[in-house]
Amino acid sequence: MDKTTETVIEADPKVPIIRMTRDFAATPEQLFRAHTDPALFAQWVGPDSLTTRIVHWEASTGGSWRYVSERGGEQYAFHGCFHDVRPDRIVQTFTFDGEPDGVTLGTLWIEPLGDGRTRLRSQSLLDSFEARDAMLQSGMDVGVDQGYAKLDRMVSDGTL
Amino acid sequence: MDKTTETVIEADPKVPIIRMTRDFAATPEQLFRAHTDPALFAQWVGPDSLTTRIVHWEASTGGSWRYVSERGGEQYAFHGCFHDVRPDRIVQTFTFDGEPDGVTLGTLWIEPLGDGRTRLRSQSLLDSFEARDAMLQSGMDVGVDQGYAKLDRMVSDGTL
Repeated sequence: MDKTTETVIEADPKVPIIRMTRDFAATPEQLFRAHTDPALFAQWVGPDSLTTRIVHWEASTGGSWRYVSERGGEQYAFHGCFHDVRPDRIVQTFTFDGEPDGVTLGTLWIEPLGDGRTRLRSQSLLDSFEARDAMLQSGMDVGVDQGYAKLDRMVSDGTL
Repeated sequence: MDKTTETVIEADPKVPIIRMTRDFAATPEQLFRAHTDPALFAQWVGPDSLTTRIVHWEASTGGSWRYVSERGGEQYAFHGCFHDVRPDRIVQTFTFDGEPDGVTLGTLWIEPLGDGRTRLRSQSLLDSFEARDAMLQSGMDVGVDQGYAKLDRMVSDGTL
C-alpha cells in the first residue's frame, strides 16, 4: 500500500457490529460538512463506479435522508433517518431499498487528532451476525476505500 | 396471573436484543393508531406512575418524535426518529436523554391473528450486552405490562 492512511475495518467478535477507523488531513469541521452538506456528501460517498443523486436530505437531529446511486442504467436507492447530529457524533439509520427489511444503526465519531488531522471512527450495528457478515462480504471495503480517497482529494483540492 | 394475555420478554442469547410478544383483543388498525397517533400514544405508554406529554411527533417514514414523562416534579425526556412506518412494521430509534450516548433501534411488527386479535411482536437492539442487560434490569417490564394493560382498557372502553 502506498498511502499513509488506510481504513481499518473490523468485525466485532461478540456483537454484530462492523467498526471502521480512518484518519484524514482535515479538520473536524471539514469532515462534519462532508457528512451533512448534501452537495458535498454526494461527491464522495461510495465507489468510483457509482454516481449519487440526493433525493431528500435534512441532516439534523430528527431529520432524514434518501439518495439514489447509479451505475449505467442500474439504480440503487437508500434511505434512513438522523437520530442525532452533533459536531462530534452522528447517529443515523440506513436501509438499502433492495433489502427493505434490513436496517443498520450507524454511529460516526469525528475525533480531532491535532495538527489539522482528524479521525473518523464509526460502527454499524445489525441485528444478526448473518446480516453483518453478508455486509462485510458485499464489497463494502471497496466503496469505503474509494469514497474516503475521494474525500482526501476534496480536502487537498480545496472543495471542502 | 389472572389475565389471559401476558407480555413475554426475552433476552436473545447471541445478540444484544430484547424481544417482546403480547396479544391484544384489537385489530391491527387499532394497534397501529395506538403507536402513531400522538394523543393516543401518550395515554398508554409507560408505567401508571408516569404522565407523558408529547413535545414533537411525526409518525411517518423519515419523521421523528420527542416526549417528556413526568412523575411528581421529576421529568424524563426521550427522543428518536422513525426509520420506517408501515401498517405492519414500525422501525424507530430511541434515546433516554439522561443517557444521551445510549441508542436503541426498535422494530415493532403488528401481526393479525384473526378473530379480531392481533399480536405485537417487537425487538430492541443495543450495541452491547451490558447496555441490553441494564435495560432489562431497569424495571422496563413494569412499564411494558402497565402500558399494555392501559392499551387493553382503551380497546375495551372504545377509546381506540
